[in-house]
Amino acid sequence: QALPVLHSVKKDPTLSIIVVGASGDLAKKKIFPALFALFYEDFLTENFTIFGYARTKLSDEELRNMISATLTCRVDQRENCADKMDQFLQRCFYHSGQYNSEDDFSKLDCKLKEKEAGRLPNRLFYLSIPPNIFVDVVRCVSHRASSESGWTRVIVEKPFGRDSDSSRELTRSFKQYLTEEQIFRIDHYLGKELVENLSVLRFSNLVFEPLWSRNYIRNVQLIFSEDFGTEGRGGYFDNYGIIRDIMQNHLLQILALFAMETPVSLDAEDIRNEKVKVLRSMRPLQLQDVVVGQYKGHSNGGKSYQGYTDDPTVPKNSLTPTFAAAALFIDNARWDGVPFLMKAGKALHTKRAEIRVQFRHVPGNLYKRIIGSDSDKATNELVLRVQPDEAIFLKINNKVPGLGMRLDRSDLNLFYSARYRGEIPDAYERLLLDAIEGERRLFIRSDELDAAWALFTPLLKALEEKKVAPELYPYGSRGPVGAHYLAAKHNVRWGDISGEYS
Amino acid sequence: QALPVLHSVKKDPTLSIIVVGASGDLAKKKIFPALFALFYEDFLTENFTIFGYARTKLSDEELRNMISATLTCRVDQRENCADKMDQFLQRCFYHSGQYNSEDDFSKLDCKLKEKEAGRLPNRLFYLSIPPNIFVDVVRCVSHRASSESGWTRVIVEKPFGRDSDSSRELTRSFKQYLTEEQIFRIDHYLGKELVENLSVLRFSNLVFEPLWSRNYIRNVQLIFSEDFGTEGRGGYFDNYGIIRDIMQNHLLQILALFAMETPVSLDAEDIRNEKVKVLRSMRPLQLQDVVVGQYKGHSNGGKSYQGYTDDPTVPKNSLTPTFAAAALFIDNARWDGVPFLMKAGKALHTKRAEIRVQFRHVPGNLYKRIIGSDSDKATNELVLRVQPDEAIFLKINNKVPGLGMRLDRSDLNLFYSARYRGEIPDAYERLLLDAIEGERRLFIRSDELDAAWALFTPLLKALEEKKVAPELYPYGSRGPVGAHYLAAKHNVRWGDISGEYS
Amino acid sequence: QALPVLHSVKKDPTLSIIVVGASGDLAKKKIFPALFALFYEDFLTENFTIFGYARTKLSDEELRNMISATLTCRVDQRENCADKMDQFLQRCFYHSGQYNSEDDFSKLDCKLKEKEAGRLPNRLFYLSIPPNIFVDVVRCVSHRASSESGWTRVIVEKPFGRDSDSSRELTRSFKQYLTEEQIFRIDHYLGKELVENLSVLRFSNLVFEPLWSRNYIRNVQLIFSEDFGTEGRGGYFDNYGIIRDIMQNHLLQILALFAMETPVSLDAEDIRNEKVKVLRSMRPLQLQDVVVGQYKGHSNGGKSYQGYTDDPTVPKNSLTPTFAAAALFIDNARWDGVPFLMKAGKALHTKRAEIRVQFRHVPGNLYKRIIGSDSDKATNELVLRVQPDEAIFLKINNKVPGLGMRLDRSDLNLFYSARYRGEIPDAYERLLLDAIEGERRLFIRSDELDAAWALFTPLLKALEEKKVAPELYPYGSRGPVGAHYLAAKHNVRWGDISGEYS
Amino acid sequence: QALPVLHSVKKDPTLSIIVVGASGDLAKKKIFPALFALFYEDFLTENFTIFGYARTKLSDEELRNMISATLTCRVDQRENCADKMDQFLQRCFYHSGQYNSEDDFSKLDCKLKEKEAGRLPNRLFYLSIPPNIFVDVVRCVSHRASSESGWTRVIVEKPFGRDSDSSRELTRSFKQYLTEEQIFRIDHYLGKELVENLSVLRFSNLVFEPLWSRNYIRNVQLIFSEDFGTEGRGGYFDNYGIIRDIMQNHLLQILALFAMETPVSLDAEDIRNEKVKVLRSMRPLQLQDVVVGQYKGHSNGGKSYQGYTDDPTVPKNSLTPTFAAAALFIDNARWDGVPFLMKAGKALHTKRAEIRVQFRHVPGNLYKRIIGSDSDKATNELVLRVQPDEAIFLKINNKVPGLGMRLDRSDLNLFYSARYRGEIPDAYERLLLDAIEGERRLFIRSDELDAAWALFTPLLKALEEKKVAPELYPYGSRGPVGAHYLAAKHNVRWGDISGEYS
Repeated sequence: QALPVLHSVKKDPTLSIIVVGASGDLAKKKIFPALFALFYEDFLTENFTIFGYARTKLSDEELRNMISATLTCRVDQRENCADKMDQFLQRCFYHSGQYNSEDDFSKLDCKLKEKEAGRLPNRLFYLSIPPNIFVDVVRCVSHRASSESGWTRVIVEKPFGRDSDSSRELTRSFKQYLTEEQIFRIDHYLGKELVENLSVLRFSNLVFEPLWSRNYIRNVQLIFSEDFGTEGRGGYFDNYGIIRDIMQNHLLQILALFAMETPVSLDAEDIRNEKVKVLRSMRPLQLQDVVVGQYKGHSNGGKSYQGYTDDPTVPKNSLTPTFAAAALFIDNARWDGVPFLMKAGKALHTKRAEIRVQFRHVPGNLYKRIIGSDSDKATNELVLRVQPDEAIFLKINNKVPGLGMRLDRSDLNLFYSARYRGEIPDAYERLLLDAIEGERRLFIRSDELDAAWALFTPLLKALEEKKVAPELYPYGSRGPVGAHYLAAKHNVRWGDISGEYS
Repeated sequence: QALPVLHSVKKDPTLSIIVVGASGDLAKKKIFPALFALFYEDFLTENFTIFGYARTKLSDEELRNMISATLTCRVDQRENCADKMDQFLQRCFYHSGQYNSEDDFSKLDCKLKEKEAGRLPNRLFYLSIPPNIFVDVVRCVSHRASSESGWTRVIVEKPFGRDSDSSRELTRSFKQYLTEEQIFRIDHYLGKELVENLSVLRFSNLVFEPLWSRNYIRNVQLIFSEDFGTEGRGGYFDNYGIIRDIMQNHLLQILALFAMETPVSLDAEDIRNEKVKVLRSMRPLQLQDVVVGQYKGHSNGGKSYQGYTDDPTVPKNSLTPTFAAAALFIDNARWDGVPFLMKAGKALHTKRAEIRVQFRHVPGNLYKRIIGSDSDKATNELVLRVQPDEAIFLKINNKVPGLGMRLDRSDLNLFYSARYRGEIPDAYERLLLDAIEGERRLFIRSDELDAAWALFTPLLKALEEKKVAPELYPYGSRGPVGAHYLAAKHNVRWGDISGEYS
Repeated sequence: QALPVLHSVKKDPTLSIIVVGASGDLAKKKIFPALFALFYEDFLTENFTIFGYARTKLSDEELRNMISATLTCRVDQRENCADKMDQFLQRCFYHSGQYNSEDDFSKLDCKLKEKEAGRLPNRLFYLSIPPNIFVDVVRCVSHRASSESGWTRVIVEKPFGRDSDSSRELTRSFKQYLTEEQIFRIDHYLGKELVENLSVLRFSNLVFEPLWSRNYIRNVQLIFSEDFGTEGRGGYFDNYGIIRDIMQNHLLQILALFAMETPVSLDAEDIRNEKVKVLRSMRPLQLQDVVVGQYKGHSNGGKSYQGYTDDPTVPKNSLTPTFAAAALFIDNARWDGVPFLMKAGKALHTKRAEIRVQFRHVPGNLYKRIIGSDSDKATNELVLRVQPDEAIFLKINNKVPGLGMRLDRSDLNLFYSARYRGEIPDAYERLLLDAIEGERRLFIRSDELDAAWALFTPLLKALEEKKVAPELYPYGSRGPVGAHYLAAKHNVRWGDISGEYS
Repeated sequence: QALPVLHSVKKDPTLSIIVVGASGDLAKKKIFPALFALFYEDFLTENFTIFGYARTKLSDEELRNMISATLTCRVDQRENCADKMDQFLQRCFYHSGQYNSEDDFSKLDCKLKEKEAGRLPNRLFYLSIPPNIFVDVVRCVSHRASSESGWTRVIVEKPFGRDSDSSRELTRSFKQYLTEEQIFRIDHYLGKELVENLSVLRFSNLVFEPLWSRNYIRNVQLIFSEDFGTEGRGGYFDNYGIIRDIMQNHLLQILALFAMETPVSLDAEDIRNEKVKVLRSMRPLQLQDVVVGQYKGHSNGGKSYQGYTDDPTVPKNSLTPTFAAAALFIDNARWDGVPFLMKAGKALHTKRAEIRVQFRHVPGNLYKRIIGSDSDKATNELVLRVQPDEAIFLKINNKVPGLGMRLDRSDLNLFYSARYRGEIPDAYERLLLDAIEGERRLFIRSDELDAAWALFTPLLKALEEKKVAPELYPYGSRGPVGAHYLAAKHNVRWGDISGEYS
């Protein structure tokens, strides 16, 4: 039997990862494959065990079959893949139980202890379950399945409430059972390669920092688009809408990383401190800062696509936005007056996530004659394409080779796929590894979450109270035209929708 | 007969281009091909005539044969090339004469008038001859072969003297016969695509100007290397040496364009005013600012290469440098304390011309642990590769994709050949066209030349008076090791010789 | 009897200020006069009571006599001063007790409740006592004399430990009885007018912020000098020394305010967050970064002054520094490489506290001929004189009026006494008022204190372990000459000791 | 007899100063007193002679009497003043002649030669005469009274033409007789102490240069006001008007010095090159950029003041502006978008000439709550007061001493009279001395003059062709209210008319 050892680490710790909600989609598609990838790349400790937990009754073998259906190997090391899979699956076990039953968690605890075999036990619970049962599980874990001498950490997935009040209430409940250090709120966008790279680019390169302010940046655009709709699975989405689903978390998190001041170190708390500062410097959104849209059915090339409210899982009269564009402002010395435009939508013409930084025009008029009257057309632009095909572009004016003086915009570019061989790891791999290692940098702290909701809650309330009707746009289109008017109001031109831009 | 019309242009002007020294190498290899290219691309006026002038007796037909041997067509429009060549050659004529005979030039004048046929005559003389006969030709042209009613311009090739005194004397002589506006001193490096682009990059892109100063730039390197020696044609070179041949003109001109302040307009005089200002802000070079070298024989892979003094056209005891590295400083507010390092050499391991801008390291130590102790190793660098394969790179620190935090230096890059189809015109095409159009931007004004000699003359005198022996380096090597010590003295590391750099 | 009302304020609150250690020097000279000044200026709530607490047996009347001996009125409103004094003294009471007796504090509690008379009771304890009894008092206060429904705050004076360990232990003890919000660690230097103004100058004026970095600032000097020694009262001092007494708190606090990043708001926590960040970015001091001194006896003008070890309260062989100079560095992006020099000493030639900011020299050499070779002599300097005679100077180069071009350094200046009428309030007034109002901006948070000790502890340990002998300097002199060598090592010239400087 | 010695200086040169138009007002009030001051301060060479030249017949003695009536001594050295005056007057002579008579100038030449007595003769002609006879005098001087072996220089006073055409014609005429180096166009405003100091402040102080651009400066105001009208001497003025009289020269010259780029050296040609560059970067003025006014009669305190057209020397229906305000823009990288406002007027409430630099507001809103909603009200301002009472102010926000946080604007200031003892020399002294020493920095070159007229000529033509009626304003008032609307259009508030400003 393990003796409780406070504040120390045994030579030979064990790691138990408990996927609560193991039979769900996310678990199958993302969590188990990510765990396998970590195992495959030798990032897991020798003594690790994976437990699936759910209400469904399954044998260990059934779980293993389910998992193995989605496992694939890293492109670059296929040789011993089958062996590795086998080894991995042998570490996977299943425990069936109710989500609110302390007894069931006690039984789980017994099984865990058995695997831990007296070594220092560390336990990571991944809550892949609906938010209404978050607190029950956390209570059970805390009371019955916590590690006695090692650490216990809990990963939770969004949604973290629907607004300031519900989010604060959820946090309050968590804190009854967990300390801040134990809570790992995951935003998988923060695990994307280029988002990780954002701080590296800014802070390890001298050439970017001097440009990173209102003096040189005219606007920043955060763009997320999907080329498919809810497709018969709109139940959850309709309850939240695109603003809660994408903007308030993914895009806002990226904005905070983009705009924050230099942290005092790369430690999680220092970075999160700076993120909170940026969020607190922002103005809460008003109705006039936003345009909302909803896709309607559309036929194209003989194929027809259903509108949002045609989805049987969506109420016929739903006003839930599937598209939103918003203008945000940061009232601090660095960003005063620079519009940060966000745009997120489903069922658009393209699948893409990117950050576009548009620089100001060159003062003076040396090249005005050559460039033409619209000086904003020929400005520099930095594009960080998060997906697909990670890349960085810096658009610059360049002389077209040849006699005469003709300028055009060329790209200084870096394509990840051309530069770096090998597959880029999935966001979940990075985040799971971070949680295992106690690296909290990419997880959202309670005060961050609070500050984020503070920005969006007044807007969400207003949209819902006033029953604001979204502007309809055809499935597969470039979204509602209102987004252009919103941009124009702030003297911005969307960088992603333009003949001239790539 | 044409009436003299001052300061006006007839509807139907003619253009006569007289290549003085038509039988020389430069004429054959560069001037006639460039003229043909301009014709091919329709940049020449309809009524143009080309005259070769030299002492050799040749018929028009013999000249045409000589010219046609080196003509090629633009890669992208081969179709009608043969026709075009024929048309071009029909415009080429030859006149044989002495370089100091006013009578012979009078006869040329008659022939020119015949071709001009009463239309407004413009005449461009290209002096492709040794410097000792420059003044004779200029006198003859001025007295006997000037256009009476159109313009007369004279292109001269370097060398423009050997030092301040001889250069000033040459200028004085020119000015007896020509005005400043008529003199076109050619430096063909200024016709290179990337050199032309230098001002465009700096002044039409917001992102470069804020970085373009001592606050961010640690040093600038101007590098020119050839991978061959004098190869039996060292007579002229031995009289001048690499400093006069490359540094004092090509590299110094590029430096001036790189470092100058924003001109008030893109007009030639405004740009040349700014170039003169930079040159005047520089400290004249001293012996201790320079390292000189000379290549010696070397055998490699069974092949053996002759040393410089093995060249039969070179005196056995010659001390003429075939390599030089120099550190220059600009004592103005923008560049105070930033070393500008030049390096030029023959018989080196590679053929290359480039500008390398090394930025300072990021202040603070956020990434110091990750980057390691030598913070200067991981700095940004901007490379403008003039030849071969024109390109622009910006070296940045980037996160290596994958789990964990590892940085490397990647390039944001722009390869001309990938971005722009079609052949990049030769420098001579651009410069000839500019001279025809009266665009003086890329030609060197008398006061510029004077300022350039003022920087190098004390050094050249000291080298020659003290008979400074050059450091020997093997043919095909990376040059004398002294160049590294010179760089180190100023806390610089050459960017082109390094495993890590491209 | 007052009902406990959590988190609310009754219409009519009372304020009790308990000066623990009421018979001490500080209480007499600073605390009671400051309280009277606040009363005189109508800053105290109507229902306030002041209690002296100490071991000495005194009647209320005896306390009042003691207090009244040091009370003076504000210069500008003498009229009704005597009446005001009487009113004030009527609110002053005395309670005698042991510092570690919970019973005695229970009795105090009774008396307080009597005065509070059922209104909302707020209580401020001012601990004007030696540090070895801090914890006893805090325990007694917490257990027996806390306000039940209002707030209870405790002001503590330095020393807050002698090093990292003792300080952390003290904090830990406090936190057994008090929350962070209840602890008000006072550093009376932070109450000085010009220290308060420091943030205003930096953040409300556009003209300072662009200059506030390594790009423009060459060094920063924080200077504190007293023109008297321990004068028979060296007991306490000898135990701490000048580094603990002045540098680690007063000067370091000013440095942090000077150098911190822009806070997200002016709220206490935001400002203290930024101060902690600066402290954490600093390198801990090493022996070689410091020069220590000790004054020796000196006769001057017939008068003779005792040396430090001549003081009968000081051990004969004491090595305690009465003077120290130190060079500190902040390794962040703003301040990388800028030396922050501190100097503090007793028995020097002058009494002064000031911040001197020396700017870099102008790059380029436009005025070099006129200014002379030592370009650092003619640089701009910003002086914030904290005492005596508060003032701000900006030293600029100016043309001396008259024919010819001669430059000198003149001051753009602002003398507080000339600009602002009326007495400037004592630091204690401001800080007491802030504590009453719950404004924590100027008080030192536990993590700040920790970070401050982390910088000085290794140095203090090294000084003491190696028994480093201080350099002796004569009483009334400019301090040990070693301070100049320390400065010179970092390419700095002390701004306060120079014929040319004011 | 002196031998002509080209380009060399004899050991013992003489200086002859010929004041052409010696009986005029300017000569009496400014030129002779300035010459005396230079003599008094020992700035004149030992062998100097002063000649008055005019049509009036006067004896030497009569001239001396006339001169002596206006001579005064420098405040600080009264002792030997009478002696000095006597010595000075003994060097003064008179020659009567016609302004267009070469014979009369030949006679002057004889007298000059007599005084020069074979030493190296340098001659300075000061043309204190109406512009219509400039060219006659220059011709006579050039043909008959030039120094044969020393230098000959000619100082001319404005007006230099009325517009581009007449100015260019005048320059052309001058250049028939004089080289550019001989022409000294005087603008006595450039001789003012603070105008001289402008470059010193900008270029010898690190703290100003970083602020000196569109990034930090919101607008610049150049203000000139007189508190008296034409007062019976309006003949000349009515022909020119305030724009030509003050703006196109005095204020525009100051603007150019204020706004120019750093010159490559302090040499005259380098500074004038930069001034020309600024002028060429400016947009020519349009009608809508200007407000014009004319003062009307006004009674105040029992005293009545005549309006402009009440002046008997002014036509009754004159539309000549006695007041103008204008908005100018410099389209270069430094100043793009920054309004430069000029204001000049007669018969205003105050006499003053100053430059006011208004800085932008601090970005972010840290102090917004304290400062209030109009953030532009609390911005920094730099005031350079040229007259009266030379001074420099930097207005900064400062905490008002005392408890609580209240800000106000205080001045960091430098009053010349407090800092520098002794009288500040008159502008004419400096300029005369410069002309004698061949220092051309403060004189206006032909291309500068040309560029200046290019800016104002279209406006002047439009005003005159469209007979734009000036807005009337009362004598002694603050000028026409239209000036406020002009300022408001460019988001500017005049700094000199405001309760809050000094």
